[in-house]
Amino acid sequence: MGHMIEILPGFREFYPEACFRRNYLFQTVRQVCQNFCFQEYDAPILEPLELYTEKSGPEIATQLFNFTDRGGRAVAMRPEMTPAVARMIGSKINSLKRPLKWFSIGENFRYERPQKGRLRSFYQFNIDIFDEPSVSAEAEILSAAITILTTFGLTKADFHVRLSDRLLWGFFLESLGVTAEAIPQVLSIVDRAGKERVEVLQEQLLAVTALPNAWDKIQAFQNIRTVEALRTFLSSSNPAIQERLETLEVLLKRIEHMGLRDFITLDFGIVRGLAYYTGFVFEIFERSGQSRAIAGGGRYDQLIEKFGYPSTPAVGLAFGDVTLQNILSDHNLLPTLTANCDVFVIFDKNSEAQAMHDVIALRQRGRRVDYTLKTLNLEKQFKQAAKAHWVVRYENDHILLRNVAEKSEAVTTRNELFQMVPGEGVEPSLP
Amino acid sequence: MGHMIEILPGFREFYPEACFRRNYLFQTVRQVCQNFCFQEYDAPILEPLELYTEKSGPEIATQLFNFTDRGGRAVAMRPEMTPAVARMIGSKINSLKRPLKWFSIGENFRYERPQKGRLRSFYQFNIDIFDEPSVSAEAEILSAAITILTTFGLTKADFHVRLSDRLLWGFFLESLGVTAEAIPQVLSIVDRAGKERVEVLQEQLLAVTALPNAWDKIQAFQNIRTVEALRTFLSSSNPAIQERLETLEVLLKRIEHMGLRDFITLDFGIVRGLAYYTGFVFEIFERSGQSRAIAGGGRYDQLIEKFGYPSTPAVGLAFGDVTLQNILSDHNLLPTLTANCDVFVIFDKNSEAQAMHDVIALRQRGRRVDYTLKTLNLEKQFKQAAKAHWVVRYENDHILLRNVAEKSEAVTTRNELFQMVPGEGVEPSLP
Repeated sequence: MGHMIEILPGFREFYPEACFRRNYLFQTVRQVCQNFCFQEYDAPILEPLELYTEKSGPEIATQLFNFTDRGGRAVAMRPEMTPAVARMIGSKINSLKRPLKWFSIGENFRYERPQKGRLRSFYQFNIDIFDEPSVSAEAEILSAAITILTTFGLTKADFHVRLSDRLLWGFFLESLGVTAEAIPQVLSIVDRAGKERVEVLQEQLLAVTALPNAWDKIQAFQNIRTVEALRTFLSSSNPAIQERLETLEVLLKRIEHMGLRDFITLDFGIVRGLAYYTGFVFEIFERSGQSRAIAGGGRYDQLIEKFGYPSTPAVGLAFGDVTLQNILSDHNLLPTLTANCDVFVIFDKNSEAQAMHDVIALRQRGRRVDYTLKTLNLEKQFKQAAKAHWVVRYENDHILLRNVAEKSEAVTTRNELFQMVPGEGVEPSLP
Repeated sequence: MGHMIEILPGFREFYPEACFRRNYLFQTVRQVCQNFCFQEYDAPILEPLELYTEKSGPEIATQLFNFTDRGGRAVAMRPEMTPAVARMIGSKINSLKRPLKWFSIGENFRYERPQKGRLRSFYQFNIDIFDEPSVSAEAEILSAAITILTTFGLTKADFHVRLSDRLLWGFFLESLGVTAEAIPQVLSIVDRAGKERVEVLQEQLLAVTALPNAWDKIQAFQNIRTVEALRTFLSSSNPAIQERLETLEVLLKRIEHMGLRDFITLDFGIVRGLAYYTGFVFEIFERSGQSRAIAGGGRYDQLIEKFGYPSTPAVGLAFGDVTLQNILSDHNLLPTLTANCDVFVIFDKNSEAQAMHDVIALRQRGRRVDYTLKTLNLEKQFKQAAKAHWVVRYENDHILLRNVAEKSEAVTTRNELFQMVPGEGVEPSLP
């Protein structure tokens, strides 16, 4: 007798019901991405540690499952897909047909305190476009993300995309008098809003900028919701700012043409913590503001170059499965696993040979068919058959086909039975 | 500029073409398992190390990716699914409807020298039945495994199941005069046939059994191919042996009824290395004998008990994706990734608004739709459109629908366009 060994904290077992829901998420995301003509890829779950420290700095290692493997290599379980896809794209950029529209469904791992919406193992759905510098790429990414959520049954009353721009953030902070070197620090302080006390953030901001009015100005900037208000607020003749405002308008116009403008909120409350974003950034939230971000992303034009490959523009977004599943559950939008059986075959000793033949033949023709593995009397077999749509049973030389819902039964033939093939449109001649 | 960071040896990147083939394997296995009314489950990729050492002994750790996590836990990346599923079943055995027919598609990890057919990361397809002691479970597992391979297009000329039995092995070795304690050692020597020199194995066998004729007797036993020959060979009145032979006949008869007898070869060359098998064991091989085993498994009635849970009979089988994919590739049975686009939409500045609306609307209705992200002239757009089945373009107030293969074009309406929904059987009125 051994002893019971529990699963690790922050990891999940997927019993059939949970696995069905997880696969429903995967399959819906996959279907929408394919409709948007994105191509699926995948990458290793274990990588050299430096793939992650290179992009995010050595401090990321404190959140990783990392170790030294038997060959003496410093390795880490994947905390996110982006560095790996950057390598895949970068190393073959000249042989791949561009622009590239790619998506992935992959498991990631982070050593964090498990809490609602955050586990140590989670799935992420990544959608990226490589080698397209224009905002048509941002529009394509955002429309795919919105369509994923609406396909799950969420509406514009339920969620919105908060759209921001690191370039406009930069112009704004410059106009305040923040030095170029201080800008990343300021953005990092802004990004911690809601996670730390306001007084602490205000103090840090003052220390970094030496500007007593910076906090109030940032509040005002973050309250802007229209391009017009933004133009007035920045009130600059700097042609770079004017050009960027026009680019923002082009993006919003395209999203409007797509019929999705109501899903977008201009909102400089969004900054995105990671330093590698170079332009528009976005996060998707429930409008109720209850939950963590459902998805987040932005443009990262310098990352592939950073890994030593040819400079390649990139924009992308990622969903986490835990938050997404929580929200769909709150909205009663998750399906439940019902009968997993079309046909139940009932037999006795005399009909066993024919029954076994027909079970396999029906399965080979695409029907989901079950029968009892134990030798049971007819009554008990009928009880088990209740979960199926049809019941087949053998009586003398006849095959009887029963419609369980309608409680009707009629004689059929093997030929008719074998025509019960889904997808070919030939339904059995039911009673 | 950073430097390029390679993937780890024995791991794989899945570019879209490779990912498509991998997913084709997954989807086909999933479909067949569902037709057999097996339910999908999954379990963590990282587990307490002792989950694996408990079952297979501490020596397994030399083949693992194992380490100590930040919380001081001895953990290991999953080398196989069986211990986890034994825990899942065992810990909920009383609340689960039995017998249980479960399958999984999961990634596993082993620190081994990468070679043909063996990588450090690989996928395994596990099919198991829990709480069914009769051989109807073995027949169900074997028929599912055979149907998976025939669904991929392999035939009985390509592969066969080599069926063996650890109980009959035990009876046979007893009859030779091998002591009960020596039987596991003998089986382990037999299992290494083909991996070590015959002389070495013969010496080891002599050392363990002290029987000079054991080697020749074992050869003769392994050459038996029929139950009749087996009965003659064992020529015993031991009722336990007679009963076991009858059970073997029941299993073969059921498989015959299923129409699958030609796929089975009785073959005591199969032993299965793992000590936890308690009855019938099987491996699937190409008939050419070229490759590694495509799949392997057997009955393991004592494993769940070993983990401290209620005693639960179990029988299962696992496929590895690497060998399977190699064989399908050798037989030209792998699909290639072709056009991933149904409709290509061509537009200019004047029609952009309408085009963007229709692109999203068609995608939301389930069509795979693409367009150029760059602003290109019509000629270049047409060139990109070649990969689609249909091309939609806008000219004045008209929508023109082009059948790419037939090089024909006709005016259509938005309504007709939106009826191009797959699965509903409404095809567009093509020219």
